[in-house]
Amino acid sequence: MKKNRLSELINTLPPQAVLQDADALFFYTTEQRGHFISKPLAVVLPSSTQDVQTIVRFARQYHLKLVPQGGNTGLVGGAVADQHSLIINCQHMNNIINVDSSGDSMQAEAGCTLAQVKAAADAQNLYFPLGLSVAETCQIGGNIASNAGGINVLKYGNMRNLVLGLEVVLADGSIWSDLRPLHKNNAGIDLKHLFIGSEGTLGLITKATLRLFPKPRHITTYWYPCSSISDTIDAYRKARQFFGDSISACELLPDIALHLVRQYRSDAVSLQDSAPWYVLLETQSQHSDQFLKTDDFITIPAGEAAHYWYYRRQFPWVQREAGISIKHDIALPLDAIAAFVEYAADALKTAYPEAIPTPFGHLGDGNLHYNILFAKNATPDTAGIHKMIYDLVHRYGGTISAEHGIGLAKRDLLYHYEPEIAQQLRSAVKNALDPAHLFNPGKTI
Amino acid sequence: MKKNRLSELINTLPPQAVLQDADALFFYTTEQRGHFISKPLAVVLPSSTQDVQTIVRFARQYHLKLVPQGGNTGLVGGAVADQHSLIINCQHMNNIINVDSSGDSMQAEAGCTLAQVKAAADAQNLYFPLGLSVAETCQIGGNIASNAGGINVLKYGNMRNLVLGLEVVLADGSIWSDLRPLHKNNAGIDLKHLFIGSEGTLGLITKATLRLFPKPRHITTYWYPCSSISDTIDAYRKARQFFGDSISACELLPDIALHLVRQYRSDAVSLQDSAPWYVLLETQSQHSDQFLKTDDFITIPAGEAAHYWYYRRQFPWVQREAGISIKHDIALPLDAIAAFVEYAADALKTAYPEAIPTPFGHLGDGNLHYNILFAKNATPDTAGIHKMIYDLVHRYGGTISAEHGIGLAKRDLLYHYEPEIAQQLRSAVKNALDPAHLFNPGKTI
Repeated sequence: MKKNRLSELINTLPPQAVLQDADALFFYTTEQRGHFISKPLAVVLPSSTQDVQTIVRFARQYHLKLVPQGGNTGLVGGAVADQHSLIINCQHMNNIINVDSSGDSMQAEAGCTLAQVKAAADAQNLYFPLGLSVAETCQIGGNIASNAGGINVLKYGNMRNLVLGLEVVLADGSIWSDLRPLHKNNAGIDLKHLFIGSEGTLGLITKATLRLFPKPRHITTYWYPCSSISDTIDAYRKARQFFGDSISACELLPDIALHLVRQYRSDAVSLQDSAPWYVLLETQSQHSDQFLKTDDFITIPAGEAAHYWYYRRQFPWVQREAGISIKHDIALPLDAIAAFVEYAADALKTAYPEAIPTPFGHLGDGNLHYNILFAKNATPDTAGIHKMIYDLVHRYGGTISAEHGIGLAKRDLLYHYEPEIAQQLRSAVKNALDPAHLFNPGKTI
Repeated sequence: MKKNRLSELINTLPPQAVLQDADALFFYTTEQRGHFISKPLAVVLPSSTQDVQTIVRFARQYHLKLVPQGGNTGLVGGAVADQHSLIINCQHMNNIINVDSSGDSMQAEAGCTLAQVKAAADAQNLYFPLGLSVAETCQIGGNIASNAGGINVLKYGNMRNLVLGLEVVLADGSIWSDLRPLHKNNAGIDLKHLFIGSEGTLGLITKATLRLFPKPRHITTYWYPCSSISDTIDAYRKARQFFGDSISACELLPDIALHLVRQYRSDAVSLQDSAPWYVLLETQSQHSDQFLKTDDFITIPAGEAAHYWYYRRQFPWVQREAGISIKHDIALPLDAIAAFVEYAADALKTAYPEAIPTPFGHLGDGNLHYNILFAKNATPDTAGIHKMIYDLVHRYGGTISAEHGIGLAKRDLLYHYEPEIAQQLRSAVKNALDPAHLFNPGKTI
């Protein structure tokens, strides 16, 4: 019976669109860190919006569920599927449809990788600013569904801010499409914001119109050693007054980042490292910053900037090599960051003397990757540490998920910390758009 | 009976919170241009979120409707009420609650005027960028509900982009509140985007957390005479490559704007006026543009910039004095603007030889106020002209409402031009959040 059902789908879709073989499934069913394993009935690879409609109608007919998946680079189990589900991955829908002649928008299919989108913009001397370390594999549809963040949010906003239009296949198999490259449109409730950040729970994104920017002509990196965490916030404030909106990144690094990267990466060039904290700042503009005089920030010569960014980029990976890393993707009001970081360090020291806090990340957005390192042979109280940190985040007015989303991994946390009314509103929207819970069941809601 | 019902409300709310006297109602019931007259049962002026809850519960009990109103500055009849409705206006809820010490956010009650919000930011050497000519009267709650636009969208985005948090009273009288000043938060579907731009149809906004910016230190105005409409688009492209994100405004003016303003405003200083079109450009940055060398744009000395802006600001008003002005607030893909403007002018000339097109507005956003002027004693075919222009806008991939919203005035147009599926989605959301259609019945949906 199960076999028969899929035969019908196999006969309707293009060849090789339905994967059932265990080897072929491996990439789609295994979360990159191995934290989640999916057991879907099959993985389906549509080649067109019409294929997606066919799959949706098929799933409805046979009471199957659909789990939309991008490049499978998510960190919260948002694309995990059980045996009643099909994983639907748009990797074969990977055409750049057009770059408009005014240079301010691009239309792309959902399965385009982020790297592909960035390259297509670059080829026209334009810029798509979303910056993620997984750009080569993640898909633009997944970036939209998860409202991706990354390094350059400070200047360009989250993915939400980079989307002008969407085409979405809805739970009843119909298509809502508005791909017009309009920068202003107040004709009724703006439907695209329902789907952006909904983690595939309300519909499946098949195409998007993306905002493009002029390619920045000058990128300058600055370095700011700080004697305390509250000094790092002051540094950001000063930078904001001084550089304004040309700040494209404002990243925090603790001194241990420098030590660990140097220890685990023999090719790391030594930096000035006399301070407990560092701010790594980047500006993007059409005109050189060289005329700017600032005693506050150390301007990094262009040829050396990569050395500094190397520390920032390697630090997350090095943490895994150095021991057991317990991770929290949080955001706090800027006002609360210094107090939170100091209080959390004290609380950890008391409860878990062997814990080493390694907070870093997108300081200007208030987004810390508040990770905690233990020795390789330690047996940390992971649940207790999570609870301590998330309780503190909640107390300081922060969020338990700044950029990685909710998925499966943080669903219970969301229920725990958010007021019931927020969950009721989300459920009302879910039930209105997808009453049978066809799309990504059990995620976020 | 009607009297009794209101007595109960009067007894529950603070003194003078319920207005029924015709004189007292006048301000709230008369649309600024006199296009719409409301006949509400009363106007209610809550002093707190709890008052709003009281009013919602009262209205539900007696099967009345609620029409949320800001400063009554809207242009599409979004706050018009009939005899089964109460107009609810938050003007007494006008406290700035705080400006955070990091300087990047402010909490305000919904009834604060835009001018008040801007002044509160300014007092801390900060900047709230929304720029509307009605800043002294419009309320921030209305700005959010209508996703207000204005002059500086190009750099700072619409109101949607300036909101970090909201408190909303829902149709069942409960409160959804998330006023955390978080710049990144991917913890579930972002609920605030349901309410921003919903024109008061899904809930009543009572408080907001707003994004603030460093006060720009240098504002420079540029002037660019153009020989054709397509040259104005080229000018914007050039400016974007040259100035990047420091462009804070890019406004279009036709030559008739210069003639009419000079004719009706004796204090208008004569400008260079040898071209059929002009682009008025503004940059905002922390550093002076004076070092920038550009032959393309004429840099206006700081002391003279106001003369140029005077033409832009007076042009909408002068049109009304010069004759009968038939107005369209539209946006188009940047790519389509030149073709649309040329085609529309030809089509008008053929069908209505006496019509004078006076398009102007936010060129960089693709947002034209495509107005058409007739002599004072003319009897233009308003319905025919609207149909011609909106049909053309639709054909060129544009929107019938760029920034003014839908309200009552454009509801039928929305139904006509939008695919049914969009209306079904909006209705599904409306029915999920406000099944009894308590809030702003008959508007947009």
